[in-house]
Order: sequence, then structure tokens, then C-alpha cells
Amino acid sequence: MINRLLQEIKKKDAPIVVGLDPQLENIPDHIKKKAFDEFGETLEGAAEAIWRSNRKLIDAVSDLVPAVKPQIAMYEQFGIPGLITYMKTVSYAHEMGLIVIGDAKRGDIGSTSAAYAKAHLGEVKVGNSLLEAFNTDFVTVNPYLGTDGVKPFVDACNEYDKGIFVLVKTSNPSSGEFQDRLIDGRPLYEHVAEKVVEWGNASMDGEYSNVGAVVGATYPEMGMKLRSLMPKTFILVPGYGAQGGKGKDLKAFFNADGTGAIVNSSRGIIAAYKQEKYASFGDERFEDAARAATLDMKEDIKSALS
Amino acid sequence: MINRLLQEIKKKDAPIVVGLDPQLENIPDHIKKKAFDEFGETLEGAAEAIWRSNRKLIDAVSDLVPAVKPQIAMYEQFGIPGLITYMKTVSYAHEMGLIVIGDAKRGDIGSTSAAYAKAHLGEVKVGNSLLEAFNTDFVTVNPYLGTDGVKPFVDACNEYDKGIFVLVKTSNPSSGEFQDRLIDGRPLYEHVAEKVVEWGNASMDGEYSNVGAVVGATYPEMGMKLRSLMPKTFILVPGYGAQGGKGKDLKAFFNADGTGAIVNSSRGIIAAYKQEKYASFGDERFEDAARAATLDMKEDIKSALS
Repeated sequence: MINRLLQEIKKKDAPIVVGLDPQLENIPDHIKKKAFDEFGETLEGAAEAIWRSNRKLIDAVSDLVPAVKPQIAMYEQFGIPGLITYMKTVSYAHEMGLIVIGDAKRGDIGSTSAAYAKAHLGEVKVGNSLLEAFNTDFVTVNPYLGTDGVKPFVDACNEYDKGIFVLVKTSNPSSGEFQDRLIDGRPLYEHVAEKVVEWGNASMDGEYSNVGAVVGATYPEMGMKLRSLMPKTFILVPGYGAQGGKGKDLKAFFNADGTGAIVNSSRGIIAAYKQEKYASFGDERFEDAARAATLDMKEDIKSALS
Repeated sequence: MINRLLQEIKKKDAPIVVGLDPQLENIPDHIKKKAFDEFGETLEGAAEAIWRSNRKLIDAVSDLVPAVKPQIAMYEQFGIPGLITYMKTVSYAHEMGLIVIGDAKRGDIGSTSAAYAKAHLGEVKVGNSLLEAFNTDFVTVNPYLGTDGVKPFVDACNEYDKGIFVLVKTSNPSSGEFQDRLIDGRPLYEHVAEKVVEWGNASMDGEYSNVGAVVGATYPEMGMKLRSLMPKTFILVPGYGAQGGKGKDLKAFFNADGTGAIVNSSRGIIAAYKQEKYASFGDERFEDAARAATLDMKEDIKSALS
């Protein structure tokens, strides 16, 4: 699957993934009003507003980017209706030719991780039927439980041609509390990176491994080090835009040939209409604002990499 | 909420939580057959079989134990129908007077953790309505992202009188890969434990904090150390029974007064009918086997603590 992602990035000339992390306060009023009028101020109403917004966003960017990354927490908070919208979003993104990275940060002990891997990447057996649940192409994975918590996901990558991104160094302010602590003179995140390489060797797919890493754009100097420690590991880079990461910082995450990373922007794109820069689009044309912000991000990254 | 758990443990004289981690191969054939006959070999059929099995298990143990712990991965693998069964299970356990610990091991950056906290412990705002999604009493949390990933859960504990159990030292074989590595001469899990105490100080509820810790029964010597480092932290102890933890090892996790820990058993109880010891109950009376195994576990722990 990582090879497909690499090819799609090349084809669209955009190492960019749009984060579909809907927060109700960022959904345009006209969409919310209509959904609430039809379904009430209910979980169903919220889920319907998110679905309609996501569909327009996907339509607006699907020719520009290779992938979208729905953050499942933002759907899970609306319970079952929210998760139905998550599934509809995954399925619609697939219809539009996009790769879907499910940002779920799952991770547990062996048999339980196997259940998560089935849920998000694989199939579950019921009697003699093999059935899909959430069916994303990639899923993010938390490494705190070690190899036996990650291996079932790697197995699923091999069995179903899927991929994962393992949290190595996250983009949030307190990520250093544990991740930066020194073990034998090197930060924990480097030890995790070493394991990511080891796990990844078991699932190579062309130049890169199906086992990728998450490294936050907010820590470019660490990105540079991790890039060199994990040459065949694709890096998913969150934290660009709203979280403070800048285009010029991104070069650190890419290999010399300009491949090996994909940069996520969520609010910076899907809520672009709320920024002064794109305010002229207004609430009614929020999807055009998202498209404009995506084009600007594309330029920003292209100039950073050149 | 932790005080309610403490009182229920005392009332039932059982520091025991029954893990509702349904795997289809452990569901009795007569239940699967009926559910598949009605709903087909579908996600709905699987979810219905699990729901019927859970209901019988809850009926069989609800007078014996204070709490159940459904493992959400086992439901998530069956997609939306699976998660509907998760919700029905939470709600039925509540009806039967049980406390519900959602074993979800969620954790993300601030605003995303806030969404998970709303999903599992709190309420989400839709227009002017405040709505519940999964509504468990406790949820397990992964600490890898540090304070800003955990704080939204602690805030939810305070706002809604709920609790969390943060992963400190997990029960699986490779948990030591990162958790045992030495930082300033002490294992990572002790540093996490220190943070658990700090986070917990912000949510005290009687003798203990609403912020608890997960420490696997498979590592009793570490349990003893962690017990002394976190005197006001309630410990959720997985790994008893099927994972190899023994009753005599459990004393380490409790304070001198016999409180401060709750021990989970999943397969050892819900699939007891498959063990030689309880085989005479047969497939048809699997819930009576579960009850017998719960009573035996109660004795085992009581004799270990006396």
C-alpha cells in the first residue's frame, strides 16, 4: 500500500494529506442549520452535518491530493451516528480515488491489537463469511505496548496490502515528557524509531515499508535525525499550519529525492474559510476556501523542497 | 467515581472485574447458531450473538462483582453492529447495577483526546443539546503523548464524576521493550507512574484518585514497587488467569488494608466452560460455568490477601 501512496503523491505532485477532523464549531452554519432542521440537535443531526461537509470537502480537494486522514475521535464523540459518518466518509473518499489514513492511534496486547487490525485494515470472520468493518488503507498505531501490540497490524499490512503509521514523536507540546527522555543516551523516540525499522523490514513494498512513522512538524530538528535513522520509513507529518509547523521546516522530513513523507493539514484546510486570508469565500463557499488553502499549501511545500 | 467503585468492591467483597472481551470462537455454539439463523453470518449476526452471550454473563455475575470491563476492540472489529452491542452491553450492565470500565486505551493530542473523553466519559454539545455517546464510568488511557493527551480525560473525570486507568505497565510479554527501559536509573513505567500521581492529585475522590493505573498481574515485583510509588492510585490489574497471573501474586498490588486494586479476568471467566475444570457445565450452561469461575476467583484472591 505504501507504494500506491508514493505513486499517488507523485501523480498529484502533492505530498499532502487533508485531515478530516470535523469539529462542529468549524462546520459552516448553513450546513448545520439544514442538518439540524431535518434531524434535530441530535447525534444524528451532528453526524449528518459532518457527512455533508466532508463530502463537499472531498469533492473540492480530491483532484489535488492523494489522501485524506479522518481522525476517528471526532466521529466517535457522536457515538454510532458519528461512526456511520466515518464509514461513509471512508467509502466516499475511496470512490473519489483517494487513499484513506484512519487516524485511530489504536494499540493493545496481541489478541486485542489483532481485533483492531481486523476492524480497521482487514476482515473479520463470521461463520464462513469474511467481512470488512472500517476498511481504511492505513491506520495510526500507538507503540507503548511494544512488539506484540504492533505485530498484528504488520501482519494485516502483509495480508491485505495495507499500511500503518506508528507514533514516534508526536506534534503536541507535552510530547517530550516521555518521548524525549534519554535511554542509554538517546531519546525514547529514537528507540521507538529503531523498532519501527525492525517491524518495517517485515513489510517492504517497493522503496518504502508499509510500516511508517508519525513525526510532528513542530519538531523539525528531531525530524531530520529520525529521517536519517529510518531511511525506508515513510513519515506522516502532522502539526503543519494550525499547530505551528511551517513549510520551511518540512524539508527535514523528506529524503534527498523529495519523497518519504506526507504532510497533514486539518483545520488549516477544512476550516480555511475562518482564516482572514480566505474569509472572502464566506461560509457558503467554505469548500472553495479549502481548495485555495490546499493549493497554497502545495506551493509552500514545493518551494520548501526545491 | 473511584469512591463508588471502592464502596461496591467492599459491598460485594470482591475486588474483581469481569472482562467482557468476546471472541466469536468462545461464544457457545447454541447462541451463535440461533443468531446466525436469524441474522445470517453477518456483522449483525456476530453482534447479536455477542449481545445475547453478554446479557447472560452479566445476569450470572452481577450479584458477585462490582464491575465489568468490555474491551472495545472486540466490538469494533464487527463495525457498527459490534459497537451497537458495546453500547447495549454498557447500558444493560448499568441497569444491573454494575460499574463499567471501557477498555479503549485511547489517547491523542489535546483537542482530540477531549473528543475521546466526551465520547466515552462525558457529553458532546450539539446545538443546545448535551448528548451522551458511549457513557462508560471509566475508560483506559494510553500515556505516550504526555500530559496534554491525558488532561482532557482528567477534566472529564471532574466534570462528570468519572474515572480513568492510565497504562503504566501492561501485562503482555513485550511490554518491557519501552516500558522497562531505564531513564535516570529508573524504568519508564515509574516515570509514567509519577505523572499518574501528579494527574491524579487534580481529581481526588475520597481515599483514592479518579485517575487510576493499569499494572499487569504478570509482573508482581513491579506491582509492589508501583503500589508504593502510587499509594492513592487505584490499580486495575489485567493478566490474571489466562495470561498467567496467579492469585498469590496479587497481594503486591493491594495496599495493607486490602484495598486499592481491582483484578480483571476475561477469558478465564467468560470462556470458563471451555476449561476442563468447568467442562461439566457444557456449552448450554456456559453462564453457570462463568459464575463458578467467578466464585473460585473470589476465593483465590481472598486467600491471597488474607
